[in-house]
Amino acid sequence: MSRILTGIKSTGIPHIGNVLGVMLPIIDIVNNSLEKVFILIADLHSLTKINNIKNIKDNTYKIAAAWLACGLNIDKAILYRQSDITQITELFWYLNCFLPYQRLKLSHSFKNMKNSKKNINIGLFTYPILMAADILLFETKRVFVGKDQLQHIEITRKIAKKINNKIKKIFVIPEAKMKKNSMSIPGIDGSKMSKSKNNTINIFSSKKEIKKQIMNIHTNNNKISSYEELNNDIIYNIYKLLANKAEIFHFEKQILFEKEFGYEKAKIELYKYIIFRFSNERKKYKFYLKNKKIISSILNKGAEEAKKIANITMIKIKDAFNFKN
Amino acid sequence: MSRILTGIKSTGIPHIGNVLGVMLPIIDIVNNSLEKVFILIADLHSLTKINNIKNIKDNTYKIAAAWLACGLNIDKAILYRQSDITQITELFWYLNCFLPYQRLKLSHSFKNMKNSKKNINIGLFTYPILMAADILLFETKRVFVGKDQLQHIEITRKIAKKINNKIKKIFVIPEAKMKKNSMSIPGIDGSKMSKSKNNTINIFSSKKEIKKQIMNIHTNNNKISSYEELNNDIIYNIYKLLANKAEIFHFEKQILFEKEFGYEKAKIELYKYIIFRFSNERKKYKFYLKNKKIISSILNKGAEEAKKIANITMIKIKDAFNFKN
Repeated sequence: MSRILTGIKSTGIPHIGNVLGVMLPIIDIVNNSLEKVFILIADLHSLTKINNIKNIKDNTYKIAAAWLACGLNIDKAILYRQSDITQITELFWYLNCFLPYQRLKLSHSFKNMKNSKKNINIGLFTYPILMAADILLFETKRVFVGKDQLQHIEITRKIAKKINNKIKKIFVIPEAKMKKNSMSIPGIDGSKMSKSKNNTINIFSSKKEIKKQIMNIHTNNNKISSYEELNNDIIYNIYKLLANKAEIFHFEKQILFEKEFGYEKAKIELYKYIIFRFSNERKKYKFYLKNKKIISSILNKGAEEAKKIANITMIKIKDAFNFKN
Repeated sequence: MSRILTGIKSTGIPHIGNVLGVMLPIIDIVNNSLEKVFILIADLHSLTKINNIKNIKDNTYKIAAAWLACGLNIDKAILYRQSDITQITELFWYLNCFLPYQRLKLSHSFKNMKNSKKNINIGLFTYPILMAADILLFETKRVFVGKDQLQHIEITRKIAKKINNKIKKIFVIPEAKMKKNSMSIPGIDGSKMSKSKNNTINIFSSKKEIKKQIMNIHTNNNKISSYEELNNDIIYNIYKLLANKAEIFHFEKQILFEKEFGYEKAKIELYKYIIFRFSNERKKYKFYLKNKKIISSILNKGAEEAKKIANITMIKIKDAFNFKN
C-alpha cells in the first residue's frame, strides 16, 4: 500500500487557500482511496522564524481544528505534530551528511532569502533537508506540495537516491504531486493566496474579520462589462472556486447585466456565500478550539501511530549506517 | 553539582594522543571530583565522512574499550553513544534556528574545508551545531576540547545566550577547558598527533604495528649531541610524556652520552617502554573487544542515564518553545 504525505506550517489561522488547495482535496483522497495518508503539522518548521515561537502551540491547534472541521476521518488518516516525532530530527541529521553544501546553496528558496537580505539562520538554510526527513521517514510515494516546493522534492529525491546507491537501498523515492488548484487560488490582491503576503481570507476567523478581508479585495474602477474583464476579476475567481455551476451562472449574470450590482454588492455576495458554504466547518472549528483536549488526544494518537511506522524505518537506517548493536 | 563533558569521534583505533591527552586526565577527574562527567562517543559526527560508515560500529567499540581499559569507573561517569540519544538531534534542529548562516560560514573549520576543496556536505558545515547540542543538552559547565575546537565552544555559547535572552533562560553557558597536553603530544612526524594526519602511535594495535609506527618516527641524520637537539627530538618528547623522572634522566643520558645509542636504539627503547607501560591496558582492551556484549551493556546503561537527564532539559526547552500540550 503506497503512502501519501502533506503538511502545513503552523504559522496562523488556516485560510481559504489552505482549505480549497490542500485540506479538501486530501480529505477526498482519504475518503476514496486505500492509500495511507500522513498529515503533518509542521511546527518544527515554524521555529525558523523567531517571531512565530510564542504562537506555535496555538497555531498547531488551529491547523488541527481546521482539518477536523473540514471532515478529516482520523480513523483513515494519521494527523500528527512534527515535533512529537523525534525520529524526524534524527533522520534530519543523517540526511545532512548526504547533501553537498553547494547544492543546497543553489536552491531557489535560499537564493530568494539572500536577495531579501533578511537575517538568515541555519534553520532557514537547511529546512529543505528537514522536509526530506518528513517525507523519507514514512516511505512516502506521493507528496502533495505547492509549486514553490517542487525543488525540495528534487532535493529529497537526490539524497534518497544517494543513500540507496552508496549505502543500502532503504528509501522509497518520492514523487511530487502538485496541490490541486494550488496556483489558482488568488489572494485579495490577485497574487497567490499566502499568509506571508497578508492577502488571505481566513474562513475560520470572526465574520467581521472575514468581511473586512473580502471588502479589501482589489478591484478596478469601472464596472465589469465583458467576459474578459470578468475572468480577470478576483471576486469572481474566488466565487467560482466555491460555488456550483448554477450559482456561478447566476453570479455572472448579476455582475455583467444588473446595473446596481457593482463591486461592493459582489463582495457582499461573496462574503455571504462563504459564510453559508462553510457554516458547518466554522461551527466545528469553534467547537474543537473550545475543546483543545480533544485535539490534543487526536494529535497524540496520530503521533503514536506515526512513531511506530517511523521506528521501522529508523531501524533499517541505523542498521544500514552500522549504528546498531 | 556542575557537569563536565568530553567526546571522541569514532573514527579509528584510539592512539596515544587520545589516551594521554583526553582519557587519562578525564579518568583522573572522574576519580577525584564530585562533578558529573559525561563521555560521549561521537558516532553521529563520524557520518560526515561517508568512508567512515562501514566501520562506525567497530570504531565505537574500540573507543569504548579504550576508555574501559584505561580504567574509567562507569559508576561515576556516564559513557554513551551519541546515536543512542535521540534528544541530541532533536535539540540540534532547534539550535539550527538560532545561529545566523553568515556566522557559521565564517567558522575556521568550514573555511579550512573550503580551502581543501573537498566535497563538503551539509553535515560537515553544520557539525559545530551538533556539538552545541551535545553540550547544551546536558547543561554542561566545562567542556574538554582541543584547541581546534575552541571556536565551536564559542558558537555554542553564542546560541545558548541568544536563546536565554530572546526566549527563556534555559541553558547553562559552557566554558571550554583545554585538554591537558593537547598541543604537546607530537605525532611521528612531529606535528600534533591526529588520525587525520596518519602520524599516530596506536597503543592498542598489535605489537608489530606499534613497532612499525615507532620505527617511522622522523629523525635527523646526525646523532643528538646537545640538550637543544634533544628537546627537539620526537622520540625523546614522546618518551618524556610517559616515563617518570628517573627513567627520563636515564634515557637522556643514553641518547647524549652512549656512543652506540643512536636513533634506532632510542626507538626500540621507546617501543619497549610503551609496551611495558600499557601492558595492563592492552590486555584489558583485548578482553573487552572479545566481549563486546559487555561493552554493549555498559553503553546501553550509559544511554539510559544520559537519556533521563536529556529528557529533563528537553521538557524545559519544549515548554519554552511552546511545543507542549
